[in-house]
Amino acid sequence: MAQRADVDDGISDAALALLRTKGPRSVTVEAVAARSGIAKTTIYRRFRDRRDMLSAALSKVTTPEPLAADAQASDRLRWLIQEAVKTVDVGIGFGGLAAMLTDDDPDFTKLFRRILGRQRADLEAVVDAAKADGSFRADVDGATLVDAIVGAHIAERARTGRVAPAWEARLFDLFWPVVQA
Amino acid sequence: MAQRADVDDGISDAALALLRTKGPRSVTVEAVAARSGIAKTTIYRRFRDRRDMLSAALSKVTTPEPLAADAQASDRLRWLIQEAVKTVDVGIGFGGLAAMLTDDDPDFTKLFRRILGRQRADLEAVVDAAKADGSFRADVDGATLVDAIVGAHIAERARTGRVAPAWEARLFDLFWPVVQA
Repeated sequence: MAQRADVDDGISDAALALLRTKGPRSVTVEAVAARSGIAKTTIYRRFRDRRDMLSAALSKVTTPEPLAADAQASDRLRWLIQEAVKTVDVGIGFGGLAAMLTDDDPDFTKLFRRILGRQRADLEAVVDAAKADGSFRADVDGATLVDAIVGAHIAERARTGRVAPAWEARLFDLFWPVVQA
Repeated sequence: MAQRADVDDGISDAALALLRTKGPRSVTVEAVAARSGIAKTTIYRRFRDRRDMLSAALSKVTTPEPLAADAQASDRLRWLIQEAVKTVDVGIGFGGLAAMLTDDDPDFTKLFRRILGRQRADLEAVVDAAKADGSFRADVDGATLVDAIVGAHIAERARTGRVAPAWEARLFDLFWPVVQA
């Protein structure tokens, strides 16, 4: 079983690396086989097609880490920042994001928006629970908050070509008054 | 003089429309001439080269509207939201932004980052003045705030393919606690 998981990881890692660096159109079964050294026949035994393969890779990076239900408000905000940014940072990358903004590969856009919708529901559920138990202020708009968190990261990268150190702490300081009950 | 300004507007409008829809590589003197109906020789009488032409067009959309020095804190935040988003919305568009994220046209990226730097200095000066006169809380990080504002707009577009109505009001409500003294 360990070996099977290794092969799955090898396929996902290669698919995401291609996506991040060369955009969604580059993620073909052929290219993933070439990059990972895993035979095409092996990939096709696990995944019906390119879309199925890409879907599995994307789901991995959009599945949030568990968060303790009794976590403090500050830890919940830190968790939101990490999970929101992970989608771009270790997920689709700026290449994948650029493709989504221009709808360069409509098939990929549709697939990723569906997967992202599930992740967003998980993140917004954490915001709603925090509002319900009084940890976050009751009037926070969860969807706009998560967009602003991940967007701050994207805008800094577009503006400067990099994201300066301590970005997690800077985002925490900026958004703490937004959620503080 | 009116006619001269009309020609300048025609050149800028065509350059920005090409940038927004087809990305920076599409903005050539030839393409701008074809789109605007303005002769290439006329364009070359005004601008040394493509870069000079693009620079003039970009400077137009990144020059902030004047803001009254005694504007209320809420009006200053509304102004920041409008000016920050304008850069993408009526400026470089999602096509231009995508090109910057992937550095598809390094010449354009360098040019636009320099122009954006001037706009950012204007926006951050307004934040600093508001902090100094007690309108905004003293610990706001102006650069991260502006990144978060424009980024929220970008992230919503990437996530859904559009920016839902009332985005200005949603951003105001989210960021008001960030700046409120």
